[in-house]
Amino acid sequence: MDKDKRISNAVIRRLPKYYRYLKELLRNEIYRTSSNELSNMTGFSASQIRQDLNNFGGFGQQGFGYDVFNLSNEIGKIIGADKDYKIMIVGAGNIGQAIANYTGFYENGYEVIAIFDNNPNLIGSTIKDIVIKDIADVEAYLSENFVNIAVICTPKSVSQAIADVLIKCGIKAIWNFAPSDIKGPEDVSIENVHLNESLFSLTYHYNKREREK
Amino acid sequence: MDKDKRISNAVIRRLPKYYRYLKELLRNEIYRTSSNELSNMTGFSASQIRQDLNNFGGFGQQGFGYDVFNLSNEIGKIIGADKDYKIMIVGAGNIGQAIANYTGFYENGYEVIAIFDNNPNLIGSTIKDIVIKDIADVEAYLSENFVNIAVICTPKSVSQAIADVLIKCGIKAIWNFAPSDIKGPEDVSIENVHLNESLFSLTYHYNKREREK
Repeated sequence: MDKDKRISNAVIRRLPKYYRYLKELLRNEIYRTSSNELSNMTGFSASQIRQDLNNFGGFGQQGFGYDVFNLSNEIGKIIGADKDYKIMIVGAGNIGQAIANYTGFYENGYEVIAIFDNNPNLIGSTIKDIVIKDIADVEAYLSENFVNIAVICTPKSVSQAIADVLIKCGIKAIWNFAPSDIKGPEDVSIENVHLNESLFSLTYHYNKREREK
Repeated sequence: MDKDKRISNAVIRRLPKYYRYLKELLRNEIYRTSSNELSNMTGFSASQIRQDLNNFGGFGQQGFGYDVFNLSNEIGKIIGADKDYKIMIVGAGNIGQAIANYTGFYENGYEVIAIFDNNPNLIGSTIKDIVIKDIADVEAYLSENFVNIAVICTPKSVSQAIADVLIKCGIKAIWNFAPSDIKGPEDVSIENVHLNESLFSLTYHYNKREREK
């Protein structure tokens, strides 16, 4: 998959959005689309879309447009949506619970197989039939169980230390909700989610419009 | 604030990250920084940072660097972090509850003042002393109460319809967690959060590394 290397991060960020809209078209039994139609749906320009999708080798054909099924399959493979993942959650607070309870993950092939916390009041209780384990036992757990993705939902004061332990135990993908960037070695994929940053983007535009009134 | 207009969306997306790191420096009583130091913290290149921050009129001085306090203040003003916001949440499921319970918002000047749902089992119960109201009463509520930001945490099947009602009632900023893009008129700021897209970005990089092994 050498062609991956030429794909910019900006394009990668747009792929899940294409994937989502293509799946929506399939659900509506629409099997052919155009860059103009995709533009209307996604808000990206048609030329941007053509350029992005060209990265994956000309799924668009003059006069025919895009084959929705093939295109969504190909993009799904690239972003890894065709695979199943075993997930562990560290931190069973608000966000951790919301993620553990989110049924959309199960539909998409993500299976939460373990939840850890350090709070004695939470350890032993269950979320969706999964017993919350003591974080002190995480190394022993990972020596016996394979996990693809660790979701970190702890306070930021401990998030990096916990990530370091998980990485030492062989975890190669971290989805971080603690409000502080987690860093790790080159061979570990880390996605830092910052909900505050999304909120600031909203308040930027909101205030800009208020000022312009 | 005419200069706002020249700032690209990509820059706007990076500002909250600068803001977060600058605040961290202030908490550690560090009042001067450089594009190199910011580069180490944020992962953006030093030249990118200089270019971004130049948009706001040369806060960096040759041989001195950036004044952390002034720079964070200016960025805070641009992204609207210097203001307080009244927030309503529609949908008191997993995500809605997590957001209502998230104390970080209160520290940053966001106040959740109302929560709505359509589930009779939830209506009347409380989250953080806020009584969950019937969504059927939302128009009456908004005719008497001012809300800056509506957070939509409903299933996607109803998210656009609810947004339409809120917009009709004068809401000008929507933070949407339903997994389907909400659309609205030009004068309404809408930020669609797609956690699945962030997860796909993670699985893309994870799978790419696995393939390259």
